[in-house]
Amino acid sequence: MENFVYHIPTRIYFGQGQLSRLRNITEINKKVLLVYGGGSIKRTGLYDNVYTILRESGVEKVKELAGVQPNPRIESVREGIRICREHNLGVVLAVGGGSVIDCSKAIAAGYYYDGDPWDFTSDPSKIYKALPVATVLTLAATGSEMNTGAVITNPELNAKLGFGSPLMRPIFSILDPSLTFTLPARQTAAGVADTMSHIMENYFNHVKGAYLQKELAEALLRTAVKYGPVAIKNPMDYEARANLMWCASLALNGLLASGARSGWSNHPMEHVLSAHYDITHADGLAILTPNWMAHVLDESTAPDFAEFGRKVFGIRIGDNVIESAKEAIRLLRFFFNSLGLPATLHEVGIGEEKLQEMASQAVSSLSNCYVPLTEADVYEIYRRSL
Amino acid sequence: MENFVYHIPTRIYFGQGQLSRLRNITEINKKVLLVYGGGSIKRTGLYDNVYTILRESGVEKVKELAGVQPNPRIESVREGIRICREHNLGVVLAVGGGSVIDCSKAIAAGYYYDGDPWDFTSDPSKIYKALPVATVLTLAATGSEMNTGAVITNPELNAKLGFGSPLMRPIFSILDPSLTFTLPARQTAAGVADTMSHIMENYFNHVKGAYLQKELAEALLRTAVKYGPVAIKNPMDYEARANLMWCASLALNGLLASGARSGWSNHPMEHVLSAHYDITHADGLAILTPNWMAHVLDESTAPDFAEFGRKVFGIRIGDNVIESAKEAIRLLRFFFNSLGLPATLHEVGIGEEKLQEMASQAVSSLSNCYVPLTEADVYEIYRRSL
Repeated sequence: MENFVYHIPTRIYFGQGQLSRLRNITEINKKVLLVYGGGSIKRTGLYDNVYTILRESGVEKVKELAGVQPNPRIESVREGIRICREHNLGVVLAVGGGSVIDCSKAIAAGYYYDGDPWDFTSDPSKIYKALPVATVLTLAATGSEMNTGAVITNPELNAKLGFGSPLMRPIFSILDPSLTFTLPARQTAAGVADTMSHIMENYFNHVKGAYLQKELAEALLRTAVKYGPVAIKNPMDYEARANLMWCASLALNGLLASGARSGWSNHPMEHVLSAHYDITHADGLAILTPNWMAHVLDESTAPDFAEFGRKVFGIRIGDNVIESAKEAIRLLRFFFNSLGLPATLHEVGIGEEKLQEMASQAVSSLSNCYVPLTEADVYEIYRRSL
Repeated sequence: MENFVYHIPTRIYFGQGQLSRLRNITEINKKVLLVYGGGSIKRTGLYDNVYTILRESGVEKVKELAGVQPNPRIESVREGIRICREHNLGVVLAVGGGSVIDCSKAIAAGYYYDGDPWDFTSDPSKIYKALPVATVLTLAATGSEMNTGAVITNPELNAKLGFGSPLMRPIFSILDPSLTFTLPARQTAAGVADTMSHIMENYFNHVKGAYLQKELAEALLRTAVKYGPVAIKNPMDYEARANLMWCASLALNGLLASGARSGWSNHPMEHVLSAHYDITHADGLAILTPNWMAHVLDESTAPDFAEFGRKVFGIRIGDNVIESAKEAIRLLRFFFNSLGLPATLHEVGIGEEKLQEMASQAVSSLSNCYVPLTEADVYEIYRRSL
């Protein structure tokens, strides 16, 4: 097990009816930037409920940044910073999924920074202070509600890059699973795939003796596999929504990575796809991950993949470990497809044109991966995924 | 899943060599009460190392409370408070296991309280402010290094009672598994049993849909079962010590109880034994737990116990679930015994004399248990355990 520092001070208010805890925002600051996405929170009534609570709690000023995109753009970040500065706002409230939260965190960090917030993607140490962030989560997926990271897209540069700082970790997050009842199946499925990918990026590692972390990761993976299909079939199944929501937060809050870090493979490869084609992040992950596994499968990785199949999908590991690993990969692919997620890049509108360019771009973000990947490897994984 | 508030701000410095982080104590306060137990930290050199770091970090004053007992006494708490007040100390540093940490937390809370700290056991709301606490952990067992609770013994009243407050949660804890290399097998075994009991007290509950919490609990139980025997056989096995240490912290930091609370059964029954006979807490738990399971075994509990056996000890659940549950109980008993822990109250010097009195005392601390227990039940569980 590796040495680690574990410090996750975000306060989580979990459960139906917890939106009322939003009144606690006034203990942080009474001048709020409200950040949200495409308007679904207006259709569901959440927007009105948020305003009712904010008013009753004595908030003095609310300004809005609306229309944050699924792959949140640097332009939204800049605009949020501008609004906060113009109106002297003191807290950023994200109401939405991971994109809205990521955008909010970047705004919070950018508020105190003299330069352009895109600078953080190359040097997060430029973040020396940040506005406090609070969140109301509406999608179980990215884990951003409890962690230090953000991923922002720069369309001009065809770049989608992540950065992080403990200063960006939300002060509190409200996780009411019933707020996800209205999610379309596609988004629910995407959340499950994103959650599983976060777990798997850490799970496949070479850290000696990190048994507990492996056990915890498998516990979370089984939870996602059990409840993903349930939530898609019965969107208002509270038990399924609750398990998926808490699972997504624990998947990427630092618990699994503490003692067992690994360089990520699929996220960096996917970010380049999203940056160029603006596809749904989790679609890219669901397409790439089984192909990545198939590409790096050999005598050395097969035992890990087979064990993954045994622990998560209940396969029996036979004498031929390579075959068992292949079965695990098949089952993962089948599971993603059964959720309605795409299996090929063609399905999301990506062809051969830019594979070489994207491979060249992705490889610069890959380091300390479970299996080292060259540009040729990434190209081959993309090509397998067509 | 139940609603919950999750907030675990303790900073954990985990791993070999992390003792150097103790220098951070000066960011809290430079006047330290150092609390420790029976002197083993002097034999191992830890005491000297702590002083070296404290001196180098610019600490201005260190006063000591030594000799804290394994079942820490209210008299030690009073003495610690007196020293802190006399010398105007600003932080309590616990170097030891759960007893030393519990005593330190009680001192921290009692410092600001005008009355006697024993009052907290009947009304923890009397804790309105506390000195900050930091810890250097030397035994993986109680989880006190990351949680809000303390258990204190009052020999005059033959009482051992717990209380808690978020104000008592340590600011930071240093978890260096190599500090447990020198533990005798008996203490290692006790730590494993205590850890497992903490998990099991929550694990057996009637909360609907808390699947993720069950999965996490099983992950931790398997970790304890895997590495307990390893650490006893090879005390300097870092992998085993690391897994056991982090397992013990996660077992009782709030993770498992968030969303799936249950009234505890075995701890309250054991506390009465410890209060009257000053036995090792975990000895009492190892003796009582299988007997508690056997006593409450029926058609309704058998599926849970059988599932526990399947997930933790790998049994196959047969057609007769009661028999499978009995097998699980047998395996738990066997496991504790294989660690060298006692199986009967006689072995720890407890006879029939006070069983009735103790049962009467214990039942007042039992509420919302997995299976409701009357005084007659507790008496019968004690009697089975003789």
